[in-house]
Amino acid sequence: MSDQTHIALGQSPYVSVRWHGDSLGQLELLDQTLLPETLRMIPIQSVEQAHEAIVSLRVRGAPAIGIAAAYAVVTGMRPLVERRAAIEESVQRAKSLCDYLATSRPTAVNLFWALDRMRRIIDRNSNVASAHELANQLLREARQIHDEDRRMCHAIGEYGASCFEPGSGILTHCNTGGLATSEFGTALAAILTAHYQGKQIQVYADETRPLLQGARLTMWELQQHGVPSTLICDSMAAQVMREGRVQYVIVGADRITARGDTANKIGTYGLAVLARHHQIPFFVAAPSSTFDLSIVDGADIPIEQRKSEEITSAFGKRTAPVDVQVYNPAFDVTPSELITAIITEVGIIHPVNQQSVGQVLSRS
Amino acid sequence: MSDQTHIALGQSPYVSVRWHGDSLGQLELLDQTLLPETLRMIPIQSVEQAHEAIVSLRVRGAPAIGIAAAYAVVTGMRPLVERRAAIEESVQRAKSLCDYLATSRPTAVNLFWALDRMRRIIDRNSNVASAHELANQLLREARQIHDEDRRMCHAIGEYGASCFEPGSGILTHCNTGGLATSEFGTALAAILTAHYQGKQIQVYADETRPLLQGARLTMWELQQHGVPSTLICDSMAAQVMREGRVQYVIVGADRITARGDTANKIGTYGLAVLARHHQIPFFVAAPSSTFDLSIVDGADIPIEQRKSEEITSAFGKRTAPVDVQVYNPAFDVTPSELITAIITEVGIIHPVNQQSVGQVLSRS
Repeated sequence: MSDQTHIALGQSPYVSVRWHGDSLGQLELLDQTLLPETLRMIPIQSVEQAHEAIVSLRVRGAPAIGIAAAYAVVTGMRPLVERRAAIEESVQRAKSLCDYLATSRPTAVNLFWALDRMRRIIDRNSNVASAHELANQLLREARQIHDEDRRMCHAIGEYGASCFEPGSGILTHCNTGGLATSEFGTALAAILTAHYQGKQIQVYADETRPLLQGARLTMWELQQHGVPSTLICDSMAAQVMREGRVQYVIVGADRITARGDTANKIGTYGLAVLARHHQIPFFVAAPSSTFDLSIVDGADIPIEQRKSEEITSAFGKRTAPVDVQVYNPAFDVTPSELITAIITEVGIIHPVNQQSVGQVLSRS
Repeated sequence: MSDQTHIALGQSPYVSVRWHGDSLGQLELLDQTLLPETLRMIPIQSVEQAHEAIVSLRVRGAPAIGIAAAYAVVTGMRPLVERRAAIEESVQRAKSLCDYLATSRPTAVNLFWALDRMRRIIDRNSNVASAHELANQLLREARQIHDEDRRMCHAIGEYGASCFEPGSGILTHCNTGGLATSEFGTALAAILTAHYQGKQIQVYADETRPLLQGARLTMWELQQHGVPSTLICDSMAAQVMREGRVQYVIVGADRITARGDTANKIGTYGLAVLARHHQIPFFVAAPSSTFDLSIVDGADIPIEQRKSEEITSAFGKRTAPVDVQVYNPAFDVTPSELITAIITEVGIIHPVNQQSVGQVLSRS
């Protein structure tokens, strides 16, 4: 990791999740529903408030949700610590806190993974002296989850930045930044790291209909970090490529199969086809935990359909006739043959096929 | 033209422009700014009101603007007819009405073309007996322009529909329908004609960011005609193709060069690349008047940049940070080699090259 990157990390202008103090301390979440207009950290006083924050997308992005939920278990323990509850009661309560938080986003894999780690800590500490001691152990694990995510982001950032020539234009889609993770993100970590390495990059961000995560969140993050960046509509990506404005495309991933087929935000597959036509490298950046090795063929990934109102009347105004039929797939699957490389925290998978996926992941 | 199509024409549920009565009659425009929520015909009482309706996009689409402006000249003559003004004054006034209406949309080629036809009528009738007789001749020419456009639309519709196999899915972009023309439109005429021929087609309409003409106008027209149709975001077109939901893409055109390179609404070029990748025929439908034979290479067509607010705060809500940089090209250019055929009112250009363009247009 370069010195410049280390300096930059100390200056990160925002975080999605933070914890102040000891196990009686304070969880704070950046309220992403207020972005880009307002930057506000909300103090989380109870586990119910944390649950609501996850449900209503105040905190979003799989890694950020997992970290927030881990800290929220500690928040939920505070009343027991304060009244010096017995350890038996404290263990029961800690387990029910995990069960409760797991109901906040039923499909978030990272959420379950983080809460499973917290459950193991509860099991391992069911004989400690006090509620306070249990809460201390839970906070230690939450901090560990948080730190691991931070290291993962920066490792992806370093590997990803190494793929970009200085002075390049880079196109990205949706939000894969510090808002969705501990800091810096996945695909956006590669971009931010290249920026702080002085590579003089220029970013084009797709607005990402229907929910505009690119316009609302990615453009905000790029602005906070001072990265030269330009917002476009999704339909303009082909023209931006044709004009030679971008030399790379980099996106995140929701799920990656054993041979590298990648499910990601709707629009990703089209970008991959356009990149191939314009002979532009197409990168996916994601932690190794995104791989689902139980699936080989991307066609076996089910595609979630979302409600039509996201398209017909997003952002307060009705923009289509009443009662029209809408098709609103949440994501699409890009076949591995359209992906130049997959960038993980343990290395770069290139070319992308079942053998190379296995080789690189075996390092983790 | 099939019998079924003729029946359908008599049942067209709306028109963009209409004239009631004789030369002292009434121009009415469908106020497109109120769609899709409200269907309202606004009576045009003065040439100033017509000018405002064009400026503020109450009437839009190059052919519809030309027709509306031609009728608006007749509307502007009414005060002179009523007070039996001298023919010399009436001729002067008629010419100044044309000059005034030409200032309403400075880049609309059809507007100038229609007003030039009205000017020739004024020149040819500068010695008639009365203002009333001049107004009658002007109304005859406006009706002629209107009728020619109607015939053009239906000829494109017949040629276009002949390209579609029964039971097909058809993807379209932006609005190319009866709202933009006298009736039925260009690319949408092909779709509507196929529908009324009983071809059992299913339409997918891109919403067409930033101004959502696909969601607001095309979906409304399809609904009015009872065509089975589904709204998607622009970023979903690739997925719809991959899933085998569409067998054709058909779009309109703003300008076509001598070899068939086609400027059209932003997003068209990307659709053409995606269609090629999925081996789906890609059609352009446009009247022969859309060809600009003075240009061969599409790279020589200047690309209009539009204001950033269309992307950052369209439809009343700010959806991007303040002061972000935006790239907002109004259209793109699809090279002829990506176009399967160009459908005009005088025939189908296929394959698309300079020779075949010349051959088909020589019939007009």
